[in-house]
Amino acid sequence: MRLEAIDHVGLAVGDLEAAVERYRATLGIEPIHRERVETQGVEEVLFAVGDSFIQLLGALGPETPVGRFLERRGEGVHHIGYRVPDVAAALEELKRRGARLIDDAPRAGSRGTTIAFVHPASMGGVLVELVQV
Amino acid sequence: MRLEAIDHVGLAVGDLEAAVERYRATLGIEPIHRERVETQGVEEVLFAVGDSFIQLLGALGPETPVGRFLERRGEGVHHIGYRVPDVAAALEELKRRGARLIDDAPRAGSRGTTIAFVHPASMGGVLVELVQV
Repeated sequence: MRLEAIDHVGLAVGDLEAAVERYRATLGIEPIHRERVETQGVEEVLFAVGDSFIQLLGALGPETPVGRFLERRGEGVHHIGYRVPDVAAALEELKRRGARLIDDAPRAGSRGTTIAFVHPASMGGVLVELVQV
Repeated sequence: MRLEAIDHVGLAVGDLEAAVERYRATLGIEPIHRERVETQGVEEVLFAVGDSFIQLLGALGPETPVGRFLERRGEGVHHIGYRVPDVAAALEELKRRGARLIDDAPRAGSRGTTIAFVHPASMGGVLVELVQV
Protein backbone atom coordinates (compact mmCIF):
# COMPACT_ATOMS: atom_id res chain seq x y z
CA MET A 1 0.00 0.00 0.00
CA ARG A 2 1.30 3.43 -0.81
CA LEU A 3 1.33 5.59 2.34
CA GLU A 4 2.40 9.00 1.06
CA ALA A 5 2.82 10.72 4.41
CA ILE A 6 1.66 10.96 7.98
CA ASP A 7 -1.13 13.39 7.12
CA HIS A 8 -1.80 14.18 10.77
CA VAL A 9 -1.73 12.99 14.34
CA GLY A 10 -5.02 13.69 16.11
CA LEU A 11 -4.84 14.53 19.82
CA ALA A 12 -7.95 14.44 22.00
CA VAL A 13 -7.92 17.39 24.40
CA GLY A 14 -10.33 18.28 27.18
CA ASP A 15 -10.33 22.04 26.62
CA LEU A 16 -9.65 22.92 22.98
CA GLU A 17 -9.00 26.63 23.48
CA ALA A 18 -6.58 25.99 26.36
CA ALA A 19 -4.76 23.34 24.32
CA VAL A 20 -4.44 25.64 21.30
CA GLU A 21 -3.07 28.37 23.53
CA ARG A 22 -0.64 25.93 25.16
CA TYR A 23 0.68 24.74 21.79
CA ARG A 24 1.06 28.34 20.61
CA ALA A 25 2.79 29.44 23.79
CA THR A 26 5.01 26.38 24.21
CA LEU A 27 6.08 25.80 20.62
CA GLY A 28 5.62 29.29 19.22
CA ILE A 29 3.61 28.01 16.25
CA GLU A 30 0.29 29.31 14.93
CA PRO A 31 -2.82 27.30 14.01
CA ILE A 32 -3.62 27.30 10.29
CA HIS A 33 -7.11 25.79 10.20
CA ARG A 34 -10.17 25.40 12.41
CA GLU A 35 -13.27 23.40 11.56
CA ARG A 36 -16.34 22.13 13.36
CA VAL A 37 -17.17 18.64 12.05
CA GLU A 38 -20.70 17.90 13.29
CA THR A 39 -20.81 14.43 11.70
CA GLN A 40 -17.82 13.39 13.82
CA GLY A 41 -18.78 15.37 16.91
CA VAL A 42 -15.54 17.34 17.03
CA GLU A 43 -14.03 20.74 16.57
CA GLU A 44 -10.50 20.52 15.18
CA VAL A 45 -7.60 22.95 15.05
CA LEU A 46 -4.58 22.21 12.84
CA PHE A 47 -0.95 23.22 13.21
CA ALA A 48 1.35 22.57 10.23
CA VAL A 49 4.52 20.56 10.87
CA GLY A 50 6.41 20.09 7.63
CA ASP A 51 4.20 18.07 5.29
CA SER A 52 1.98 16.94 8.20
CA PHE A 53 -0.44 18.41 10.72
CA ILE A 54 -0.94 18.20 14.43
CA GLN A 55 -4.69 18.09 14.92
CA LEU A 56 -6.12 19.13 18.28
CA LEU A 57 -9.57 17.62 18.75
CA GLY A 58 -12.17 18.96 21.14
CA ALA A 59 -15.37 16.92 21.71
CA LEU A 60 -18.73 18.56 20.90
CA GLY A 61 -20.26 16.57 23.78
CA PRO A 62 -19.62 13.66 26.16
CA GLU A 63 -21.48 11.15 23.94
CA THR A 64 -19.26 11.71 20.91
CA PRO A 65 -16.37 9.36 20.00
CA VAL A 66 -13.76 11.85 21.26
CA GLY A 67 -15.87 12.60 24.34
CA ARG A 68 -15.99 8.91 25.21
CA PHE A 69 -12.25 8.55 24.47
CA LEU A 70 -11.48 11.39 26.92
CA GLU A 71 -13.70 9.83 29.59
CA ARG A 72 -12.01 6.45 29.17
CA ARG A 73 -8.37 7.34 28.54
CA GLY A 74 -7.86 11.03 29.18
CA GLU A 75 -5.99 13.38 26.87
CA GLY A 76 -3.61 11.90 24.35
CA VAL A 77 -3.24 10.61 20.80
CA HIS A 78 -6.67 9.70 19.42
CA HIS A 79 -5.63 8.51 15.93
CA ILE A 80 -2.98 8.63 13.22
CA GLY A 81 -3.99 9.78 9.73
CA TYR A 82 -2.06 8.37 6.76
CA ARG A 83 -2.27 10.16 3.41
CA VAL A 84 -3.07 7.77 0.57
CA PRO A 85 -3.67 8.51 -3.12
CA ASP A 86 -7.02 6.67 -3.24
CA VAL A 87 -9.01 5.77 -0.11
CA ALA A 88 -11.39 3.43 -1.96
CA ALA A 89 -8.49 1.45 -3.41
CA ALA A 90 -6.73 1.38 -0.02
CA LEU A 91 -9.90 0.00 1.64
CA GLU A 92 -10.12 -2.73 -0.99
CA GLU A 93 -6.50 -3.69 -0.39
CA LEU A 94 -6.99 -3.72 3.39
CA LYS A 95 -10.08 -5.93 3.05
CA ARG A 96 -8.10 -8.33 0.87
CA ARG A 97 -5.36 -8.39 3.50
CA GLY A 98 -7.87 -9.23 6.24
CA ALA A 99 -7.75 -5.92 8.15
CA ARG A 100 -10.65 -5.04 10.42
CA LEU A 101 -12.26 -1.83 9.12
CA ILE A 102 -14.50 0.71 10.80
CA ASP A 103 -15.63 2.26 7.49
CA ASP A 104 -16.49 -0.07 4.63
CA ALA A 105 -16.58 2.85 2.19
CA PRO A 106 -14.94 6.29 1.95
CA ARG A 107 -16.73 9.27 3.46
CA ALA A 108 -16.26 13.02 3.70
CA GLY A 109 -13.69 14.32 6.19
CA SER A 110 -12.64 17.82 7.19
CA ARG A 111 -10.76 20.16 4.79
CA GLY A 112 -12.69 18.62 1.88
CA THR A 113 -10.80 15.34 2.26
CA THR A 114 -12.09 11.80 1.71
CA ILE A 115 -11.45 9.49 4.63
CA ALA A 116 -12.02 6.07 6.17
CA PHE A 117 -11.12 4.58 9.56
CA VAL A 118 -9.33 1.28 10.21
CA HIS A 119 -9.91 -0.52 13.52
CA PRO A 120 -7.14 -0.34 16.16
CA ALA A 121 -7.15 -4.15 16.44
CA SER A 122 -5.44 -4.34 13.04
CA MET A 123 -2.94 -1.56 13.76
CA GLY A 124 -1.20 -2.28 17.07
CA GLY A 125 -3.82 -0.63 19.26
CA VAL A 126 -3.94 2.61 17.28
CA LEU A 127 -6.99 3.97 15.49
CA VAL A 128 -5.91 4.69 11.91
CA GLU A 129 -7.49 7.10 9.44
CA LEU A 130 -6.83 6.99 5.71
CA VAL A 131 -6.88 10.46 4.15
CA GLN A 132 -7.17 11.36 0.48
CA VAL A 133 -6.49 15.07 -0.03
CA MET B 1 10.20 27.09 17.02
CA ARG B 2 10.97 25.47 13.71
CA LEU B 3 9.43 21.98 13.60
CA GLU B 4 10.65 20.58 10.28
CA ALA B 5 8.57 17.41 10.24
CA ILE B 6 6.90 14.72 12.27
CA ASP B 7 10.04 12.60 12.42
CA HIS B 8 8.19 9.60 13.80
CA VAL B 9 5.29 8.34 15.83
CA GLY B 10 6.40 5.75 18.38
CA LEU B 11 3.97 2.92 19.16
CA ALA B 12 4.43 0.73 22.23
CA VAL B 13 3.63 -2.89 21.34
CA GLY B 14 3.53 -5.97 23.53
CA ASP B 15 5.08 -8.38 21.04
CA LEU B 16 7.44 -6.62 18.65
CA GLU B 17 7.81 -9.47 16.15
CA ALA B 18 4.04 -9.98 15.96
CA ALA B 19 3.46 -6.26 15.50
CA VAL B 20 6.07 -6.01 12.73
CA GLU B 21 4.46 -8.96 10.97
CA ARG B 22 1.00 -7.40 11.38
CA TYR B 23 2.13 -4.09 9.89
CA ARG B 24 3.82 -5.90 7.00
CA ALA B 25 0.80 -8.10 6.33
CA THR B 26 -1.86 -5.43 6.81
CA LEU B 27 -0.23 -2.51 5.05
CA GLY B 28 2.11 -4.35 2.71
CA ILE B 29 5.09 -2.23 3.74
CA GLU B 30 8.57 -3.38 4.75
CA PRO B 31 10.60 -2.31 7.79
CA ILE B 32 13.70 -0.30 6.93
CA HIS B 33 15.57 -0.21 10.24
CA ARG B 34 15.89 -2.19 13.45
CA GLU B 35 17.88 -1.16 16.51
CA ARG B 36 18.24 -2.26 20.10
CA VAL B 37 18.63 0.85 22.30
CA GLU B 38 19.82 -0.44 25.67
CA THR B 39 19.93 3.03 27.26
CA GLN B 40 16.18 3.42 26.61
CA GLY B 41 15.28 -0.20 27.25
CA VAL B 42 13.68 -0.71 23.84
CA GLU B 43 14.08 -2.47 20.56
CA GLU B 44 12.69 -0.39 17.70
CA VAL B 45 11.64 -1.20 14.15
CA LEU B 46 11.00 1.60 11.66
CA PHE B 47 8.69 1.75 8.66
CA ALA B 48 9.08 4.73 6.30
CA VAL B 49 5.96 6.78 5.56
CA GLY B 50 6.87 9.68 3.28
CA ASP B 51 9.31 11.91 5.17
CA SER B 52 8.36 10.29 8.50
CA PHE B 53 8.63 6.94 10.26
CA ILE B 54 6.29 4.70 12.15
CA GLN B 55 8.36 3.33 15.02
CA LEU B 56 7.25 0.10 16.67
CA LEU B 57 8.71 -0.14 20.18
CA GLY B 58 9.14 -3.36 22.10
CA ALA B 59 10.18 -3.18 25.77
CA LEU B 60 13.43 -4.93 26.81
CA GLY B 61 11.82 -5.69 30.18
CA PRO B 62 8.85 -4.78 32.42
CA GLU B 63 10.84 -2.18 34.39
CA THR B 64 11.69 -0.06 31.35
CA PRO B 65 9.73 3.10 30.40
CA VAL B 66 7.92 1.30 27.55
CA GLY B 67 7.35 -1.78 29.74
CA ARG B 68 5.71 0.38 32.41
CA PHE B 69 3.68 2.23 29.75
CA LEU B 70 2.33 -1.09 28.41
CA GLU B 71 1.45 -2.24 31.93
CA ARG B 72 -0.38 1.01 32.66
CA ARG B 73 -2.04 1.85 29.33
CA GLY B 74 -1.69 -1.11 26.98
CA GLU B 75 -0.57 -0.85 23.37
CA GLY B 76 -0.82 2.49 21.63
CA VAL B 77 1.03 5.69 20.81
CA HIS B 78 3.95 6.16 23.20
CA HIS B 79 5.33 9.45 21.88
CA ILE B 80 5.54 11.84 18.92
CA GLY B 81 8.98 12.79 17.59
CA TYR B 82 9.38 16.22 15.97
CA ARG B 83 12.39 16.87 13.76
CA VAL B 84 14.16 20.10 14.66
CA PRO B 85 17.34 21.63 13.22
CA ASP B 86 19.03 22.02 16.62
CA VAL B 87 17.87 20.16 19.75
CA ALA B 88 19.98 22.28 22.12
CA ALA B 89 18.50 25.50 20.75
CA ALA B 90 14.99 24.03 20.86
CA LEU B 91 15.46 23.07 24.53
CA GLU B 92 16.62 26.60 25.34
CA GLU B 93 13.55 28.06 23.63
CA LEU B 94 11.23 25.62 25.45
CA LYS B 95 12.80 26.50 28.81
CA ARG B 96 12.31 30.19 28.06
CA ARG B 97 8.67 29.48 27.18
CA GLY B 98 8.13 27.67 30.49
CA ALA B 99 7.73 24.12 29.13
CA ARG B 100 8.31 21.21 31.47
CA LEU B 101 11.23 19.16 30.16
CA ILE B 102 12.29 15.59 30.81
CA ASP B 103 15.79 16.11 29.40
CA ASP B 104 17.65 19.29 30.32
CA ALA B 105 20.29 18.61 27.68
CA PRO B 106 20.43 16.74 24.37
CA ARG B 107 21.47 13.08 24.38
CA ALA B 108 22.13 10.33 21.87
CA GLY B 109 19.13 8.64 20.23
CA SER B 110 18.82 5.79 17.78
CA ARG B 111 19.99 6.10 14.14
CA GLY B 112 22.80 8.41 15.29
CA THR B 113 20.31 11.16 16.12
CA THR B 114 20.44 13.69 18.93
CA ILE B 115 17.29 13.82 21.02
CA ALA B 116 15.54 15.23 24.08
CA PHE B 117 12.14 14.53 25.64
CA VAL B 118 9.52 17.11 26.65
CA HIS B 119 7.03 16.26 29.42
CA PRO B 120 3.45 15.36 28.38
CA ALA B 121 2.11 17.99 30.80
CA SER B 122 3.31 20.71 28.43
CA MET B 123 2.03 19.00 25.28
CA GLY B 124 -1.63 18.03 25.77
CA GLY B 125 -0.93 14.70 27.44
CA VAL B 126 1.50 13.49 24.79
CA LEU B 127 5.14 12.65 25.41
CA VAL B 128 7.16 14.63 22.85
CA GLU B 129 10.64 13.87 21.55
CA LEU B 130 12.78 16.41 19.73
CA VAL B 131 14.96 14.79 17.06
CA GLN B 132 17.97 16.26 15.32
CA VAL B 133 19.02 14.06 12.39
